[in-house]
Order: sequence, then C-alpha cells, then structure tokens
Amino acid sequence: MPIYTAPVRDTTFVLKEVLEYDRHSNLAGFADAAPDVLEAILGEAARLAENVIQPTNRPGDTEGCRRNEDGSVTTPAPFAAALAQYREGGWTGLAAPTEFGGQGLPYVVHSAVGEYFSSANMALMMYPGLTQGAIAALLAHGSAEQQALFLPKMVSGQWSGTMNLTEPHCGTDLGLLRTRAVAQGDGTYSISGQKIFISAGEHDLADNIVHLVLARIEGAPAGVKGISLFIVPKFLPDGSGEPGARNAVACGSIEDKMGIHGNATCVMNYDAATGVLLGAENGGLKAMFTMMNEARLAVGLQGLSIAEVASQNAAAYARERLQGRSLSGPKAPDKPADPIIVHPDVRRALMTARAFNEGGRALLLWTALASDIAHRSADEGERERAEDLLGLMTPVVKGVLTDKGFEHAVMAQQVFGGHGYIEEHGMSQFVRDARITMIYEGANGIQALDLVGRKLPQNGGRALQAFLREVGEFCEAGRGDENLAPFTKALKKGLNDLQGATMWLMQNAMAKPDNAGAASTDYMHLMGLVALGYMWGRMVKVAQAGLAAGGGEPEFYQAKIATGRYFMERIMPETALRLARISAGADTMMALPAEAF
Amino acid sequence: MPIYTAPVRDTTFVLKEVLEYDRHSNLAGFADAAPDVLEAILGEAARLAENVIQPTNRPGDTEGCRRNEDGSVTTPAPFAAALAQYREGGWTGLAAPTEFGGQGLPYVVHSAVGEYFSSANMALMMYPGLTQGAIAALLAHGSAEQQALFLPKMVSGQWSGTMNLTEPHCGTDLGLLRTRAVAQGDGTYSISGQKIFISAGEHDLADNIVHLVLARIEGAPAGVKGISLFIVPKFLPDGSGEPGARNAVACGSIEDKMGIHGNATCVMNYDAATGVLLGAENGGLKAMFTMMNEARLAVGLQGLSIAEVASQNAAAYARERLQGRSLSGPKAPDKPADPIIVHPDVRRALMTARAFNEGGRALLLWTALASDIAHRSADEGERERAEDLLGLMTPVVKGVLTDKGFEHAVMAQQVFGGHGYIEEHGMSQFVRDARITMIYEGANGIQALDLVGRKLPQNGGRALQAFLREVGEFCEAGRGDENLAPFTKALKKGLNDLQGATMWLMQNAMAKPDNAGAASTDYMHLMGLVALGYMWGRMVKVAQAGLAAGGGEPEFYQAKIATGRYFMERIMPETALRLARISAGADTMMALPAEAF
Repeated sequence: MPIYTAPVRDTTFVLKEVLEYDRHSNLAGFADAAPDVLEAILGEAARLAENVIQPTNRPGDTEGCRRNEDGSVTTPAPFAAALAQYREGGWTGLAAPTEFGGQGLPYVVHSAVGEYFSSANMALMMYPGLTQGAIAALLAHGSAEQQALFLPKMVSGQWSGTMNLTEPHCGTDLGLLRTRAVAQGDGTYSISGQKIFISAGEHDLADNIVHLVLARIEGAPAGVKGISLFIVPKFLPDGSGEPGARNAVACGSIEDKMGIHGNATCVMNYDAATGVLLGAENGGLKAMFTMMNEARLAVGLQGLSIAEVASQNAAAYARERLQGRSLSGPKAPDKPADPIIVHPDVRRALMTARAFNEGGRALLLWTALASDIAHRSADEGERERAEDLLGLMTPVVKGVLTDKGFEHAVMAQQVFGGHGYIEEHGMSQFVRDARITMIYEGANGIQALDLVGRKLPQNGGRALQAFLREVGEFCEAGRGDENLAPFTKALKKGLNDLQGATMWLMQNAMAKPDNAGAASTDYMHLMGLVALGYMWGRMVKVAQAGLAAGGGEPEFYQAKIATGRYFMERIMPETALRLARISAGADTMMALPAEAF
Repeated sequence: MPIYTAPVRDTTFVLKEVLEYDRHSNLAGFADAAPDVLEAILGEAARLAENVIQPTNRPGDTEGCRRNEDGSVTTPAPFAAALAQYREGGWTGLAAPTEFGGQGLPYVVHSAVGEYFSSANMALMMYPGLTQGAIAALLAHGSAEQQALFLPKMVSGQWSGTMNLTEPHCGTDLGLLRTRAVAQGDGTYSISGQKIFISAGEHDLADNIVHLVLARIEGAPAGVKGISLFIVPKFLPDGSGEPGARNAVACGSIEDKMGIHGNATCVMNYDAATGVLLGAENGGLKAMFTMMNEARLAVGLQGLSIAEVASQNAAAYARERLQGRSLSGPKAPDKPADPIIVHPDVRRALMTARAFNEGGRALLLWTALASDIAHRSADEGERERAEDLLGLMTPVVKGVLTDKGFEHAVMAQQVFGGHGYIEEHGMSQFVRDARITMIYEGANGIQALDLVGRKLPQNGGRALQAFLREVGEFCEAGRGDENLAPFTKALKKGLNDLQGATMWLMQNAMAKPDNAGAASTDYMHLMGLVALGYMWGRMVKVAQAGLAAGGGEPEFYQAKIATGRYFMERIMPETALRLARISAGADTMMALPAEAF
C-alpha cells in the first residue's frame, strides 16, 4: 500500500516565511487564520488526509464506480464514510462565506490543505472539488434567492455540484454546443440534450446534485454568444428547500477510463429537465469561466498533489530496495546490496521531482494568495495587481504543474522498476490518475493559447510587464549578495530567455498568428520555468537567512538551498531550449498538407 | 477502433535508399531478400499486421489473460487464430538459420516487419518475440543435440520460449538471485525457486514452453560469477522429441498490471523442476546477455511501434475532429468548425512524433543492419566495426526510443482530449502498453549506465570515436552542399555538444564515478539526439537527391525534407540542455542525505 505524509513543514515554510502570509491580516478571513491557527488547521488536515482519506485511494481504483439498472451510481465502498468525516470537519466550506455556513478562511489556506487531500485520494476529492466550482459560480452570478436556496447545503456538503459543458461533438469549442433550453413561461426552462465526461455527474455521496449546465436558449445567437448557464438540480427543491421531485436528468452510462476510477465520469442525459437561469441570458460563457478559473488552479494543484505522493513513495522505495552497489564504494556493506538511493540516476529522479514539487507548491500558493487579494483587498491598485498576476499565472499553474506532475509521477513509477508497472504498489494508479489533469478543465494546449493569445496582450501586456519587472528587481537585488548571487544569476538567464521569447512574439505573431500558436506550449513552459525559478530564488533567500540566524532547523534550510541549486543547475537551463523552439516559428511546423499525415 | 497502416514506403526508403541495403548482397541471406523480394515481404507483413493482428489488439487489452485453477493460462480469445496465421506465414523463423527450418533472411528484415507486427499488437507479439531471444541463446550456447531438439520446433513456432531472470528481491542486480540448481548425477539439474515478471510464462498458444532459467548451482561462487543458465521445458521432450512428462514448473499467478494485458506476466514456481545446462557452468550471465542484447533492440522497436500507431491515430483524429477555427482564418468555412489539424499546437504534437518515428526507424534499421554485418560478414575489420556500432547503439535504441515512444504515445493521446482518456478509442492502451518498454529488459537508467560505464570506455573508446568520426565527416562533407548545409550545421552543433559531454566525462568521471552516473541518462539522450540527427541528415540528403532527380514522388521527398528541418529546428537544440545538465555533475544531486527524502 502506498504511503503518504502531508508536507506540513513545507507548507508553513512557503506561507509564513516566503509569502509572509501574515502581512495580509487586514484581509477578510486572514485574521481568523493567524499563524498558530494555521498550523492547527494544517495539522488537522494532515491527519485526516493521512489516516482517513489516503486508505481509500487504492480501493477506489480497484472497485471503481458502478451504474445500477435504475441509473443510480454506487461509488467505492469506503468513500462515503471518509467523505462524511471530511464534511463533518467543515472542510467543504473552509473558504466559503460565513453567511452561507462557511468558515470564510482564505483561499490560500483552502489550497494548502487541498493539496493534502488530493494527494490522499484525488478521485474522491473531485466530488467536493467540483462543488467548489459550482459554489463560486453561484456566489458570483446567483440571485439572492438562488444563493439562499443552494449555497448553505452545498457549503455544508449535503448537496454537491457539477459542471456540464462538454458534448460529444464539442469540447474546447463551446460555440458548437446543442443542448437546448426552452422557456416555460414560469421562469423555468426545459433543458434537453446530452452532456459527456461529467465528473461526479451521479453518485451516492450527497442528498442532491446541483448540475450547472450550459445550453442554448431557443432563438439565441449562434456560437458562444448564445450560450446560457442553468441550474438543473437532480431533485427539485420543494417549498422548504429540501430535495423534492426527481428532475428529468439521468446518468446514461459511466465512462471506462484510464484512471480516476473512483470518480463517476458520466454521460448525462437531459430529457426536458427543469432548470433556471444562473446569471444573464446568453451570459453563460462568462459565468462558466467563474467556475473554470478556480477549477484550473485546482487542477494544477492535483498535478502537484500526485507528483508529491508519487515521489514520496519512490523515495521510500529507493531507501529500502537493495540492488547493486554505489559507484563510489559500498554504502551498506553489511547488506547484500546498497539501497538504490545511492545510485545517482535514482537521485536524479527524486531530486527533479522534489525541485518541481517544492517550487510548484510555492507557485501555487503565491497564485492562490493573489486570488485572495484580488477578491478581498480594499485597495483598488492592489486588487488590480493581484488580478493581473492571478490571470497570468492560472494557465501556467494548470498547464505546467500538470504536465510536470504527470512526468514526475512517471519518473517515480520508474524508480520501482517492474514493481512500478504492476498495480499492487499503486504507482500505476498515480500515473493513470495524473494523466487526466493534463486534459480536463481545458487541455494544456488550450492553457498555452489562453496565456499567449489572451493573457499576454491583455491591457497592453500590463500583467506580464509587472511579472518581468518583479523578477528582474529580485535578480538585481540579489547581485550584491554573494550567497544569493549564483541563484539570481541563473534566474536572470532564464528571465532573459523569457524576455527574448516575448519580444519574438511581439515581432512575429501579429502579422502571422500561427507563430503564436506554434510558440504557445513552449512559451507556457518557459514562463513556468521562470516563475518556478523565481519561487526558488525567494525560497533560497529565506533559507539562507534562516541558516544565518541559527535556530533549530539547519538541515531543513540546507536541504532547501541544495534543492534550489539543483533547480538552477539542471532545470533552469531548459529556458534556452524553449526559446530556440519558439524562435523557429510556425513555417516548418505547418509546411506539410493535412493529407500528408 | 484504432486504425493502423504499415509504413511500407518509409521502410523501403530507409532500407533501399538511405542504408543502401543491397550493397550487402554478399552477406548470407541478403541475396534472398533482393529489393523486389523485400517489397513482397514487407507487403505481406503489412497485410497480416493490418488485417489479422491489429483487430486483436483492443480485445487483448479488455479480455486480458486468465489463470485457471489448474494453473493453466487462457489468453484472449482472438489470439490463437491470429498467431496461427503468423506462424503459418513463416514469420517466426524469418531470420533463423535454414538448417533449423528458418528462412535465414537478414535480421534487419526481421526488424522491419517486426515494427509492423508490434504496432498491430505488441502484447500478442511478445509471445513469439521472447521465443526469438531463447532461439538466439540456443544458437550461441546450445550443444548440437540441444539445438536439434529444441530449435526446429521453436523456429516453426510450435514451441515458444521465455527468459526467467527476475526474482522478488532481485531485478537489475542478478548477483542476488537465489533460485537453486542441484546436479542429479545424470546430467540434469533439479531447479527450485521463484521467478517473477515472466512474460509469456504460461499460455495456451504453443505445444510446449522452453524456459531459460538463471539459477545458482549448489556451491557456486557468490554474485554474478556463480550464475548458470538452464533449459527447463514445461513438458520434458520424450524419446522422439515430442512433449512428454509435465515438468515441475507452474504459473503461480498472473500479475495485474498497467498494460500489455494480452500478455501473461507470470509468477513462475520451480519446484525441483528438471533442467539442463545451457552453455558453461557459471557462464549464465554471458549466455543471458545473448538473449538480452537482441531483446533490447526488440524493445526499442516496441517503443517506436507504439509511437507510430498512436501517432497515426492522432493524425486521423486531428483531420476529422472539428473544433475551433484556424488562427489564420477558417480552413473549412463550409463546416461548423475547422479540423483541429489546423491548430499549430496540434501540429506540434504530430510533427514531433513524426520526426522521432521516422528518425527512430532509420536508427533502428541501421543498428539492425550492423547486427547482420557483425554476425554474417567474412571481413574481420567490417565485423569489428559493426560490432562496435551495435554495442554502442543498443542501449541508445532501447533507452531513447522507449522514453520517446512513451512520450509520443502520451502526446498522441493528448490530441484526442477527453476522448483520449477513455478506453474506447484505444489511446489509453497505447500509453499503458508503451510504459513497460521503459522498464523491462533493463530499465532505461540501466541502459544509460551500460552506455556510459561499459560501452564508452570499451577498447579505449573505439566505438564512440568511430561514431563521432563518421558523423563529423558527414557534416564536413555537407558544408559544401548549399541545400544540405543548414542541416549538417545543426547536426554539427549537436555533435559538438556530444563531444563536449564526452570530454567532460573523461575529465570528471574517472576520479569520481558518481559523475558518470549523474550524467548517464542525459548522455544517453544526447547521443540519441545526435544519432537521430545523423539519420535525418542522411535521409534529407537522399530526399534532396531524389527530388533533384525528378520522378514520381516529389511530395514524399518534400515531406521528408520538411520533417528533417523540423527535427533540426525544434529537437536538435535539446543537445545543449543535455550538455548543461551533464556538466552540472553529481555534487548537488548527491548533496542531501538519504534520510532527507
């Protein structure tokens, strides 16, 4: 059985020491999570994740979900009890407004504990996870009545939520969607159509399921301008707000898929189901993006989560598995062979994943903190800067942490050799589960296009310029610090490559948009490298100060510095490759006619 | 259902035009595969692969193998009939000596058709595939009597073979193995122990299974010096050489694994089973490597095979799936959206895989041809050069074509979006199947160590020097050819990086062997990039000449040149990253104590 230990000390290092989270105690909710409270919350989350949720992960994969003849869905046996403890602990509403029964704590704290829960069982945590997106959409676009009706039960976890976007012929291109909505004259709509790939579409883990469904109202404009978002509950709330009549929405089948077997990915059939508008008529795309943006950060977090737990298992295996002798002489001469962690190539896998996971955690929490500031600050300028950063980093967090999360789950599996390929040790599950994170909530190619095509040019490039300036100033300040300078020098090289790539895009993508598309994935990874490098620069700086100040944790800070050095030596140089690819442009890529493939 | 079309024209391009295969008509067997015969063979293999073998691939994954209560194993229903056609076509013995019923054709031809068969159904082809390794070991180390008894039936495919190396505590480090052999006094041995991960260990596809088993004779030296190889047939041949008494070897269970479900990966229990020595007492490691080296090329071929078929499916999907509009204006204005192949980021995936697959095919066939020359040439110098190349390239072909094969199967799956994650389209199977190729027959980290630790220093670096010289001369010759020069210039840059990395290793790995280990995987990929780049240089040169000569295939040659340009522009620059990582050395990688993980 796989192991898992929540990296609480790494979280507090980032939140307290690097991001200086308590500087924001003026923001709503932050005062309720003062440093000592924060540690208690993290510790409680760690215990729940390690002891209650993680043991359900392998059974979830092997049992999977079953659709019964009546269309109901049975989830893996241990899920209900584990989720009940999660719900009872108030984790569903951790960051939700207190007026709807939430705890109103910062989103960054919700994200920090969310990592632990997803590491423990990603498929299970998708049930409350999708509910978060639905809550966000209701908070932003729901009427007071809708909020009062749905939010308390969703915040408490009694009811769950879903996002219904995809149709068989329409995934990325939502303009093609066909699900129809017909006004009934009583304020409700009759919704008909088929949605596919609906995560947590039907299950036995909540009293009601609140489906948020994109559909086209009769006579609406073609394309994305004619899409509206509807609330379509599985059970229509009765007069007292309790689940009443069964609505005409049903799970037609469960997809047989590569991983996340514990989550029911459903084909949902809407057969004149009753729904009400959420937000404005034909304003569905905007409302949908409210769910989507938060969901994208959550998916980036999933990528990190799986890489973290997979790496922990690889490290544990590498410390125990005896095979071969160290090239520099036996390290365990009393044993028949050395543990494989003595072999540099095994270390390479562990250190690479570690450098990404620790950097990724900082990047994710930095972005989540920006989300808090953007939503909670009273200062308009501060809000704008935070919104810029949040918008810029959302596709990077989603695309890079999931591409790399999968890659490092594969690396961790490789450490197990043949034992990683059989299902018994759970490493195959990590790889199969992580694979979906590169695909859903906008495939990573779409994240890259969002970054290059929307986020870069927005407001005259303001968000990017602010990011480049911040990293540049950090590098400049580091030059005079002889301990930090080797790190900021490597970071500066990456920053130069990012600036070069940006310049290339400005000069070549206006006249020829295919050059932007051809550059997009490499640009996203280039920006990810610089952002992660910046996080490493800041973490190293704090760790060096911590070491210099003495105190009780020299090994912890030394490990941070060594891992930061590894990032700068072995990972940061990838920026040059990304720039070389970007500069190659689209011509050769697009040279062959489609028929040649 | 996935599609598959064997890339026959690409194969003949490499064999006839690039490698000028017919220059070797003096070698045994080559005259029997003259160009017209070769085309007939490839065409026949293509038909069998496409029409008979490929349709068994999805059922093989979904049905899997079943161990029955009596220890027998039932393979997926359509396997037996498909394999019978393969056997009846004489494909099992294509390259085996005519004296044992084979066709004696070149190994390079066997490899060329092997690609098609593995693309069609890798799990099925592992049954005859493992038999090839056992045939090679019997040819090299068997007595005349053993050869006469076993080879005809194995060459015809009536009997199959296996390799029994791994034990629960011992994979890479065979010195730890515990399976015991006790001399019975009659020339036979009594073999006892447990082997795991035995591919095709038990099944219903042959009349007998010839297990080649590594074991330790009582009183043998410790470590790898005390290992012997034994022939342990499932049924002991009777006086007439037919399957007789059941031997005491049995399948204890079938592993539940990530992929290759159609192949029975067995725990094999030897309970005082009767075996005879194959080769010298305590010479098992050497005999095992006879199987292993050939198997490693075959596994590299599997990596290529899966990437090829996965890419074909991604391309077909990308031509058909309508989603979004081209950034440069609608390409299918009569349709609701453009096919996604218009999007540069989709092209990026298709072109990257294509550049690797076509380069990989050339590299694999070049290496297979070296194997033919090494085994069949009458000229000692030619044999030595070919052996050097074969030894040098075997770990590169295995490690790089499987790492990249998996990566490109993942890329192809990504083109399908959510449809790639469900099992229905077969893309998940390609990814799950490809994953094992990075692990078995020596995990890729072991390939990298074999390259850096054994193959480089062998004979004073003779093999590497010859390779560097050959590529260098090709670049030098290309400088004067204005069409070729852009390609050789990019290749030369990669070659310089490889030379720089080699120099770094010479200066830093002697005194500190961990520097070699820390560099190994990056060095293997660096060499792979240069070898693939060299193949592309040669292919582009031939294609340019073909274009200049006129004739009927301008599109074919133009596509080769464009794909070669893509390789040089977007893939070759990775050599600099590899060199940067290698030059970083082992210090930071090894800095943390094992307990820190």
